Amino acid sequence: MVKAGVLGATGSVGQRFILLLSQHPTFELHALGASPRSAGKKYADAVVWKQTELLPESAKEILVQECKPEGALAECDVVFSGLDADVAGDVEIAFKNAGKAVISNAKNYRREKDVPLIVPICNPEHMEVVEAKLRAAKEKGEQKPGYIICISNCSTAGLVAPLKPLVEKFGPIDLLTTTTLQAISGAGFSPGVSGIDVLDNIVPYISGEEEKIEWETRKILGNISDDGTEFAPLSEDEIRVSAQCNRIAVSDGHTECISLRFKQQPPPSLEEVKQCMRDYQCDAAKLGCPSAPKNTIHVLEEVDRPQPRLDRNRDAGYAVSVGRVRPDPVLDYKMVVLSHNTVIGAAGAGVLIAEILHAKNLL
Amino acid sequence: MVKAGVLGATGSVGQRFILLLSQHPTFELHALGASPRSAGKKYADAVVWKQTELLPESAKEILVQECKPEGALAECDVVFSGLDADVAGDVEIAFKNAGKAVISNAKNYRREKDVPLIVPICNPEHMEVVEAKLRAAKEKGEQKPGYIICISNCSTAGLVAPLKPLVEKFGPIDLLTTTTLQAISGAGFSPGVSGIDVLDNIVPYISGEEEKIEWETRKILGNISDDGTEFAPLSEDEIRVSAQCNRIAVSDGHTECISLRFKQQPPPSLEEVKQCMRDYQCDAAKLGCPSAPKNTIHVLEEVDRPQPRLDRNRDAGYAVSVGRVRPDPVLDYKMVVLSHNTVIGAAGAGVLIAEILHAKNLL
Amino acid sequence: MVKAGVLGATGSVGQRFILLLSQHPTFELHALGASPRSAGKKYADAVVWKQTELLPESAKEILVQECKPEGALAECDVVFSGLDADVAGDVEIAFKNAGKAVISNAKNYRREKDVPLIVPICNPEHMEVVEAKLRAAKEKGEQKPGYIICISNCSTAGLVAPLKPLVEKFGPIDLLTTTTLQAISGAGFSPGVSGIDVLDNIVPYISGEEEKIEWETRKILGNISDDGTEFAPLSEDEIRVSAQCNRIAVSDGHTECISLRFKQQPPPSLEEVKQCMRDYQCDAAKLGCPSAPKNTIHVLEEVDRPQPRLDRNRDAGYAVSVGRVRPDPVLDYKMVVLSHNTVIGAAGAGVLIAEILHAKNLL
Amino acid sequence: MVKAGVLGATGSVGQRFILLLSQHPTFELHALGASPRSAGKKYADAVVWKQTELLPESAKEILVQECKPEGALAECDVVFSGLDADVAGDVEIAFKNAGKAVISNAKNYRREKDVPLIVPICNPEHMEVVEAKLRAAKEKGEQKPGYIICISNCSTAGLVAPLKPLVEKFGPIDLLTTTTLQAISGAGFSPGVSGIDVLDNIVPYISGEEEKIEWETRKILGNISDDGTEFAPLSEDEIRVSAQCNRIAVSDGHTECISLRFKQQPPPSLEEVKQCMRDYQCDAAKLGCPSAPKNTIHVLEEVDRPQPRLDRNRDAGYAVSVGRVRPDPVLDYKMVVLSHNTVIGAAGAGVLIAEILHAKNLL
Repeated sequence: MVKAGVLGATGSVGQRFILLLSQHPTFELHALGASPRSAGKKYADAVVWKQTELLPESAKEILVQECKPEGALAECDVVFSGLDADVAGDVEIAFKNAGKAVISNAKNYRREKDVPLIVPICNPEHMEVVEAKLRAAKEKGEQKPGYIICISNCSTAGLVAPLKPLVEKFGPIDLLTTTTLQAISGAGFSPGVSGIDVLDNIVPYISGEEEKIEWETRKILGNISDDGTEFAPLSEDEIRVSAQCNRIAVSDGHTECISLRFKQQPPPSLEEVKQCMRDYQCDAAKLGCPSAPKNTIHVLEEVDRPQPRLDRNRDAGYAVSVGRVRPDPVLDYKMVVLSHNTVIGAAGAGVLIAEILHAKNLL
Repeated sequence: MVKAGVLGATGSVGQRFILLLSQHPTFELHALGASPRSAGKKYADAVVWKQTELLPESAKEILVQECKPEGALAECDVVFSGLDADVAGDVEIAFKNAGKAVISNAKNYRREKDVPLIVPICNPEHMEVVEAKLRAAKEKGEQKPGYIICISNCSTAGLVAPLKPLVEKFGPIDLLTTTTLQAISGAGFSPGVSGIDVLDNIVPYISGEEEKIEWETRKILGNISDDGTEFAPLSEDEIRVSAQCNRIAVSDGHTECISLRFKQQPPPSLEEVKQCMRDYQCDAAKLGCPSAPKNTIHVLEEVDRPQPRLDRNRDAGYAVSVGRVRPDPVLDYKMVVLSHNTVIGAAGAGVLIAEILHAKNLL
Repeated sequence: MVKAGVLGATGSVGQRFILLLSQHPTFELHALGASPRSAGKKYADAVVWKQTELLPESAKEILVQECKPEGALAECDVVFSGLDADVAGDVEIAFKNAGKAVISNAKNYRREKDVPLIVPICNPEHMEVVEAKLRAAKEKGEQKPGYIICISNCSTAGLVAPLKPLVEKFGPIDLLTTTTLQAISGAGFSPGVSGIDVLDNIVPYISGEEEKIEWETRKILGNISDDGTEFAPLSEDEIRVSAQCNRIAVSDGHTECISLRFKQQPPPSLEEVKQCMRDYQCDAAKLGCPSAPKNTIHVLEEVDRPQPRLDRNRDAGYAVSVGRVRPDPVLDYKMVVLSHNTVIGAAGAGVLIAEILHAKNLL
Repeated sequence: MVKAGVLGATGSVGQRFILLLSQHPTFELHALGASPRSAGKKYADAVVWKQTELLPESAKEILVQECKPEGALAECDVVFSGLDADVAGDVEIAFKNAGKAVISNAKNYRREKDVPLIVPICNPEHMEVVEAKLRAAKEKGEQKPGYIICISNCSTAGLVAPLKPLVEKFGPIDLLTTTTLQAISGAGFSPGVSGIDVLDNIVPYISGEEEKIEWETRKILGNISDDGTEFAPLSEDEIRVSAQCNRIAVSDGHTECISLRFKQQPPPSLEEVKQCMRDYQCDAAKLGCPSAPKNTIHVLEEVDRPQPRLDRNRDAGYAVSVGRVRPDPVLDYKMVVLSHNTVIGAAGAGVLIAEILHAKNLL
């Protein structure tokens, strides 16, 4: 079993990591890090558990420690970070410097030139930058270096996943718009979204979210430099992305109404677009990763789907659902995309990234 | 007082007409029409009242009659129709043929060449086609003819209202997209939207809605033929409109995330766009109509507004609120528009249309 | 495998039966009955599937037939009825007369003197009336007779389950009150509860529900006649039950705030009451039934639990959760009980009843 | 005009005070107190306004000051406190000592022997203790002393209001139970109730609420000592009260399912009970207070009412609605009571208390 640690273990993302790891065939929950306030307590005493599944027995007795690469955390083969951005920066770099593989849900290092920004069902090939670094160290006889891999923003994940096979098959996308209807679980829960803000209401704004979608999409759909050491995001001329983000009264599952235009004109036919997404199988599935979705993209034909309550758990939340694919009078095609924000958009993505690393012997 | 009748009086739109008319300074609730099942009963016994305000005393005792231009309904100066589309066609034409002014919320006659499709804070000048018809009859010494004026679809109303001053000042809009987050009151309540469909859920589809928005926008922003007797909607080449519609857990108030590109390039500046909407005063206000909004368009500067719960009742629901106006990487500008679907998007629009007709002596 | 049929297969209870049976280790989904409108279609074409889990592959191709004891339905060893009350009466009796074991969620036969009304984690011993009947027929050399077993009302199930061990250990309950906060799934979904009724609202009334709770509790906690052939519900003097029922915006899981007084005074101590519920193991668990809950009653000590979203799925919904057990200034003790209305309160109860019948060789 | 100040002006209760006072015929919003963080700012800049009505123009420019009896606050004739309990104690006593009439929504002084705990539509006669104190000071030629009057807990207000006429007419109540379904506005909004706690969920616990209901009911329905200077709450033997409190997804309006037994047996008839509540007119109405409800208690006969969305605004929220009055198999009668928690249960109660004081020349 691969020893796994979780940083920010009492937070909402940390709790999801713990749920996923506690039943995992490959990873073993070995250490938990949280704030000094929680350190020294048993996890069951430190956490206000808010998941719909019960707190796993295997996690209850683990002694929470501070988020430093010491003790049990130092023994981990991989460390998952659910830390808030205000503390993630220093902590994650310390673990990297201690030689650890850090898989982070925080935004701090997403824009770093040599840090992969990964949606595991979309651009796992970007992890080659890490692979190259490890290979180089090995060749030089150096110790295995630590590294950070960033999980993308949750609404970015749902957006780019169905684009990947389209770009691979039909060439670059020129214009891309998304209007999101985002679940409240994405905001955590201490306090998270206030009840009064979502009861009989919408909040048509999520701080920083639109910028993240517009920038991260360009990195994820972008390239690696010729020497294989850096990322070369698409420029604003290569793909123009526009996002409008809304918070609504849904617990889990981000819905996005997207529209796109291909560079190549005339564009592929409607049926070609749908078939291309239907046929797509992500690399993680090909590698046999245990959490990889059987169908990466579910293309639904029912007129009123996908719906969060009915479709968010397809393939345990690791797949995305696409529906209502149809011609768009303004761009080429419009469609509705649903993704599970705490699975493929956060902790689940982290676990699947680690499974890919493990399958490639990079842990 | 002007005698007013309501057709479809027990339905959700009918109930709203009754609420608005029962406290109106000019119109007097005189007659109520409903299905044969309700006919003959006192209104209080016929209706399942579902409004947040109490059933007005003045309506309780009115005897409901069938929807025919007879009895008290024949005495009305104006008839408001909240009928469902499956019965509105025959009934409304019968009232028109009986010489009545019919203001209809149904979709049946919206696409008729000589029927105005009106958002009263946007295109009241389209009622001139009716005015011309009345003038012609008068000149010929004929009896005053009946006519039908259609209220637009609710989500169309919110979309076109803020566009009107922009088009007037900066010329035609070339491309227009809207993703709607629509309230459940728009679907009526027998049964309306099922609870299980909107609790922790979104339904990304409303039957016929996207087509209505895309078509009605072109008529409302379009022209009148040279002889003043017909409408000449914009062609799909003149303005391309794309709508994506969602039903969500909000009681009242449609939110729309819209984006637009002007024909004229470069487009007006952000500040010009906002100032233009801020300065706009609708004709109904200039005519002194009692329900006309003081500010037609509220341009909000708070980063997270408009919100349905907080902003839908501005100017009693007759105004629209616009927020987050900002440059759009794909088109020119994007913004969030909120309109009260049962007021400016349905019954309230009907009442304001009648007020304009009254102010112009057309009733 | 035991062949199972489902009547009312397209309704909400029928869908839940199908979900549970499609993955069952003992029962095999063999036949589906629905209205003549659906008969002749493949199930996937006949149903509007509204479950959060996907329609099982094994059910998709089954040809729906009319609800008559013919064809594939006649081949079933057990028939689960999710029929509405207006048709359940005739259909269920026809299946009984055809020699079938019918497990019904409908209310029609619950008050019949010789029909067991069963909450499988509470009063499975009431099925002895059926057992006796089968034994008698066997002794007489007659063919195995058909029979009907009724599933209790959903909110009754949650109420009586925690009472059973208390009554067994501390003697009869004298006074019992419950105020329910019931989920909308209990009302089905065509149309079920209207969205406008539960969005920012409560409906403090559910037709017939309070009477069901007050009466069914007395049968379920009641006795069997001395000759073992009939039920002898407790009289209103033996236990007075008062229910107040509310419909609220929860998808699944009925919460009940209950209060009770024991006949025996002074009553058991608070700790005795909690320990008694904690220690209780239902017969189905002792019999090794696959769906039986490991812990029948979860006694929670957290101050703000049970909560529907967090606790309804304990033991896959076959357990009940009890929290906030505390002295009551008016009666003896008050507590909050949560039960999963579509599992232990409906289809799940039916399946667990069948498992008990199977374990006892009564099918 | 009577000069009014508001303490805790930026909080949720403070905002409601400001809304009510800004349109008041007698009181004039004169001064606003808040935390040192807000002091010195214009109110519009200090507050995050979260009301469904817009921030009144008259309040926008008022300079917020610290909560001390100085400056504009010292000029007020009456001071309304919406302060949190952790700061209300010291501040309110300072205003009292400075000779001010303080009407407080905080819990700090509710149990003080000489402080009236008032539901203005229920026990305004308890303000006589203050009246006596003022009279005594006047007789002694002393300066008019300051005093504190406490507004009751919100769910207590809804509970006791309909009991008052029953007790007056039919004598003491012996046993009283209430299960509450409470709105989230009662918890304020920074952060208030978390969205994830009420979306598809109930929280069956509100800290301290049950104790407040059980104790405050005994003071409000209790007596004044013979010398008129102190309160003599009913003992636990005189009335036993039991409350179970739940937080649910309703914005405004507390629903309570109550049950009661009269001391006098046999109890009054069902019709007598309903008629008694229907006939009740509160003293504030008799005194002509502008906010007093026209009907204090609305006794509804519809089978499924009261409902929060439909009934909470009766008489602008100053009335309570009672429905489903019916015999209770355990106590005498059960019924559903709805009250508007931010009106008659908080700020509105404060304003109505002040109106009564003004009508009696006690300000």
